[in-house]
Amino acid sequence: MGISKKELAKIMDHTLVKPIATREDVERLCGEAEKHGFGCACVNLTYVSLAAQLLKGTNVKVCSTIGFPYGITLPEVKAFEAEKAVENGARELDMVINLSALKSRDYETVRKDIGMVVNVKRSCEDVLVKVIIEVGLLTDEEKVLACKIVKEAGADFVKTSTGLAGGATMEDVQLMRETVGKDMGVKAAGGIRTLKDVLAMIRAGANRIGTSAAVAIIEEFSE
Amino acid sequence: MGISKKELAKIMDHTLVKPIATREDVERLCGEAEKHGFGCACVNLTYVSLAAQLLKGTNVKVCSTIGFPYGITLPEVKAFEAEKAVENGARELDMVINLSALKSRDYETVRKDIGMVVNVKRSCEDVLVKVIIEVGLLTDEEKVLACKIVKEAGADFVKTSTGLAGGATMEDVQLMRETVGKDMGVKAAGGIRTLKDVLAMIRAGANRIGTSAAVAIIEEFSE
Repeated sequence: MGISKKELAKIMDHTLVKPIATREDVERLCGEAEKHGFGCACVNLTYVSLAAQLLKGTNVKVCSTIGFPYGITLPEVKAFEAEKAVENGARELDMVINLSALKSRDYETVRKDIGMVVNVKRSCEDVLVKVIIEVGLLTDEEKVLACKIVKEAGADFVKTSTGLAGGATMEDVQLMRETVGKDMGVKAAGGIRTLKDVLAMIRAGANRIGTSAAVAIIEEFSE
Repeated sequence: MGISKKELAKIMDHTLVKPIATREDVERLCGEAEKHGFGCACVNLTYVSLAAQLLKGTNVKVCSTIGFPYGITLPEVKAFEAEKAVENGARELDMVINLSALKSRDYETVRKDIGMVVNVKRSCEDVLVKVIIEVGLLTDEEKVLACKIVKEAGADFVKTSTGLAGGATMEDVQLMRETVGKDMGVKAAGGIRTLKDVLAMIRAGANRIGTSAAVAIIEEFSE
């Protein structure tokens, strides 16, 4: 695959979203993200301010989770959370879709929920919104439907998984890419542990990778 | 144990907090809660309004999760979420402690996070706040410390678990009861499946039980 080490690092979100992550863990994450040139350091909102401070002046963006990992709060709560994340320095937001509304066929709530988070772009244009549809809990029909709603709602990326309910599969990434077309982002995350996994996901159509094994993966790469 | 079936039902929170719960699931939950006289129907915020509507005029209270299940957002987001939950009809709030802050020994954030949710009582006095400390991820020292902070912050209950990271044990409940004293609530939740489990938790010091098996448990009871 014609991708350089630098290009690969750029599309990897160096991720630490477990609830018991410590301040020291986040400091290490940010140091590694800068050292290896990862595009993003992805943390929970409680650490966004710290990560933004640590990464100030670097090319690494801070990504915050929103409604993580269940996605089952109200749209206005996710919107408020997104505003706070941006105020604290996040420039990418990984939100979880309202799975309960999706499963209940309440597509209007699913759409509103995403739309209200996408609205933060009004105050800060250079924010990217990725929407986790949690493929491990969906039927293929629901995956396609979710992708369409995410696209219509104006988000930038559709993302496979939180990591809690199974990971990304090549088939899911292919289906998502086919559904959203070539102009939208597809982020694969969940269970991605090796360079081989990453390259398979890229081949399947992903243009962003989320993994807590980013350092090991990029060190595997020889140009 | 000298407890009647009615008393037992009253201290059980009939619980449905999985992210893929549907509207129909919540309708069933509320119907069962009314039929069996459970004290509470515990749902995620996305369903609080529906549950409040279904349970209007009954003796069953609606309980909402807050910051569920990771607890890793900002205090102001949890406070906003708590306000919305109360506006939507919740009278009990099961919030998750900021586990990242606790593990980082940032006790001031842990305290502030709880205190800002407890503040909703200013606008609605009859709200109960329960704080999930997620015992499965804590050392005994951290459990004791978390209980002390929860008590100092003015919450009504300390609760063992979300159900995601192991369940309640008798030892944990005993330790929590010893730490908070007899005047505060202790809720055991996570992995409670049988009447035997419930009675063991009550003996250990719990005065509230959270379980998704409430109907099966109460049907086991013969007076």
